Amino acid sequence: MLLNASPDLRQQITENPALHPKIGLRHSPIVGAILSNGDIDHIAGLLSLRESQPLAIYAGNPVLEILQANRVFNVLDVQKVHRRELPFRRPISLRGPDDAPLGLEVEASPVPGKVPLYMESVTQRLGTSAGDTVGLRVTEIATGVSFYYVPGCSELSPALADWLRNAALVFFDGTLWRDDEMISSGTGAKTGQRMGHMSMSGGTGSIARLASLGIRRKIFIHINNTNPVLAEDSPERSAVQSAGWEIARDGMEINL
Amino acid sequence: MLLNASPDLRQQITENPALHPKIGLRHSPIVGAILSNGDIDHIAGLLSLRESQPLAIYAGNPVLEILQANRVFNVLDVQKVHRRELPFRRPISLRGPDDAPLGLEVEASPVPGKVPLYMESVTQRLGTSAGDTVGLRVTEIATGVSFYYVPGCSELSPALADWLRNAALVFFDGTLWRDDEMISSGTGAKTGQRMGHMSMSGGTGSIARLASLGIRRKIFIHINNTNPVLAEDSPERSAVQSAGWEIARDGMEINL
Repeated sequence: MLLNASPDLRQQITENPALHPKIGLRHSPIVGAILSNGDIDHIAGLLSLRESQPLAIYAGNPVLEILQANRVFNVLDVQKVHRRELPFRRPISLRGPDDAPLGLEVEASPVPGKVPLYMESVTQRLGTSAGDTVGLRVTEIATGVSFYYVPGCSELSPALADWLRNAALVFFDGTLWRDDEMISSGTGAKTGQRMGHMSMSGGTGSIARLASLGIRRKIFIHINNTNPVLAEDSPERSAVQSAGWEIARDGMEINL
Repeated sequence: MLLNASPDLRQQITENPALHPKIGLRHSPIVGAILSNGDIDHIAGLLSLRESQPLAIYAGNPVLEILQANRVFNVLDVQKVHRRELPFRRPISLRGPDDAPLGLEVEASPVPGKVPLYMESVTQRLGTSAGDTVGLRVTEIATGVSFYYVPGCSELSPALADWLRNAALVFFDGTLWRDDEMISSGTGAKTGQRMGHMSMSGGTGSIARLASLGIRRKIFIHINNTNPVLAEDSPERSAVQSAGWEIARDGMEINL
């Protein structure tokens, strides 16, 4: 999840360009990133960010250890790109690389998931583990409005269900429609469970399991290209929509 | 440098789809990559390739050691993505992941360069070193036609000059126009030399130093976004063209 500078911060920078590199040459609105796990699709993008632009990177300790162990990430100048540990189940105020508050609070909660694929041979473990994967609750401090962001989740544990209950908005892992989808489509050898994802459909799927949590708005993200819900005319898309879910799309804007 | 399957290989695959994953689901024409150094812009793209598609990766030993030391690259399944050492100054026949010859020969030659930025603190060395950066001569075996690919080079050594002499085509490091360009434009603190690149202009620049080598066609690649030759109406662009050089562009096709 990338952090953009708030309008307030933009105003501060306009008044004092020395505060921040957002003005002038090589402008970028990105002031930071929160890493919710260590899988390639969550961390490889760091290597495409500007090497010498101040940034704040927030991640749980297991993911910070991965960045530390892979020196290739040192291409982001560690003097300017601050790596900050994200505590679990304790909200913190997000700050930009210059330590200025961004007006947002985030709480990270470990969710059932798995160690990244490329670390399996190192850790000798599969399945769930504390903090390899987290969900995020992001709150605008001024208004108290918040949303949840859970791009990877292999199971709706009771603790996670309690955390999400009565949320105004949840973005949730929509990788697969069925657990055996990669196998039956011939695109892979692993089940969704083996990859750390619960499926949308079925009795233990996300549609069924999140149905009674009183969540006002539910949006699937992190959708694999085998997932039939991506086809607008598919019966699966209709089923998802009938169940009160939305499918995220590029350029989607949401006002809470 | 990415390797595409040749028409011959395509024909073989059409006749025997089991040979190769190029037919069917998730088709990709990419059968391999040659890594000419370990800088981020040369290796980060590996993380965007399909994780379970057979590929052949060729690199000199210093770059293979970097892949080995950074486990994040294990996301490319090492059972299917073959890492092969590229010898120096000895031509080898390129083979696809299935060991079928691609009809191309490559010779790697160490060129003056530098260790990747993120490795400087590890190796405690800067400046040139053998094999951190290589140039490539690629030859079509059937015709003997060849070209040179040298995307990074900090100095035209006598050995490199001899190697490139009378080439039909050279792609060459066009990062900067002037050595102090990053500094004077306010985009960076390092000289071109410090980054492992010789500049286009000046008495020790690539235009002057490659002028008398009898090279038939010269094309600048790896051009930084500070380089004024990118502007078609700039005096620097005119100077480059007057000196017999071309500026590479997206979608450029070349027949030898």
